Amino acid sequence: MARWAPGTPDRLRAAALDLFVRQGLEDTTVAQIAAAVGVTERTFFRHFADKREVLFSGQEHFRSAFTEGVAQAPPGASAIDAVRTGVVAGCAWFDDERRAYSQQRQTVILANPGLQERELLKMTALAAALRDVLDARGVEEPAASLAAETGTSVFRLAFQQWIAEGETRSMPEIARTLFAELDALYGAPAARARPRG
Amino acid sequence: MARWAPGTPDRLRAAALDLFVRQGLEDTTVAQIAAAVGVTERTFFRHFADKREVLFSGQEHFRSAFTEGVAQAPPGASAIDAVRTGVVAGCAWFDDERRAYSQQRQTVILANPGLQERELLKMTALAAALRDVLDARGVEEPAASLAAETGTSVFRLAFQQWIAEGETRSMPEIARTLFAELDALYGAPAARARPRG
Repeated sequence: MARWAPGTPDRLRAAALDLFVRQGLEDTTVAQIAAAVGVTERTFFRHFADKREVLFSGQEHFRSAFTEGVAQAPPGASAIDAVRTGVVAGCAWFDDERRAYSQQRQTVILANPGLQERELLKMTALAAALRDVLDARGVEEPAASLAAETGTSVFRLAFQQWIAEGETRSMPEIARTLFAELDALYGAPAARARPRG
Repeated sequence: MARWAPGTPDRLRAAALDLFVRQGLEDTTVAQIAAAVGVTERTFFRHFADKREVLFSGQEHFRSAFTEGVAQAPPGASAIDAVRTGVVAGCAWFDDERRAYSQQRQTVILANPGLQERELLKMTALAAALRDVLDARGVEEPAASLAAETGTSVFRLAFQQWIAEGETRSMPEIARTLFAELDALYGAPAARARPRG
């Protein structure tokens, strides 16, 4: 039995998610997750603090994809354009190979209120990271917070659309469409309303 | 001892908050809260399910202030303008007499991660309510969700500014300023950045 091998965290993650989906988070033990991958519990705990952590590890990496994306925007870009560049870059982190995993993960999260709250805190942390990187670019308040909140909302909505059944567009494509829709919302003083029958 | 009197929920709320601030949420009991107001625990439980509920009751009323505000927007208003009308109306619910209460409440919330998560869920519920009322006005997706998220972000930022030490503007005034700032963010393709020394 390999005590450690390249890819062990990924294999633990996949095994854990599979167990969470099949038998529920509460009824899944670390021992079961470790056994499914053929490692010891001790190996599990070398990678994750607990079974929930499997669903939330790597958040610094996740946020970096967004903040490094903001850094790629030209120096003269507006706050919104910088956020747009960052969010589209961050969405590229969710490549199509990850879609099935993300769909399963979302199923588990929606089934567990404690995880939903943690997911919301993750979004708050993303907004704070975007605000900080905008601040570092010299964007003033409240523009930095408003743009950061906007970017976080677009990410969340893009994610929801991306994992919807039958959706085939990439997440960056969905995010770009949402930003264009926001432009239209602000650019169009006329009603975008349709009559209801 | 009055078993029930007009204003009892408000008095329980004020007494509970005072105890939470002075001795912490964990160390405060329902018995203490009830005793501070001169009622029985049974009376407390007639109004609130538990001590935490004191900080979160009346959420339907809170959300209605926003959604009824949206309904006041002219039929031809854009999605953003409808949300702006709703959020400014909702912010009027937080009148200046409430500011000290809100500041204390925020202190308690920030000290308790479980309450922070619940506060985030409250924001999610507000976004969903705004989205639904926009949908009822005939606003299509994703415009309805984007506008609803925007309104919720503006409310949250307006609230943060409103309870900041030394802030004297009313919350509706702060919200109007934030919406104007958003207009400027979208209207201004040029950089709003300043150089950092």
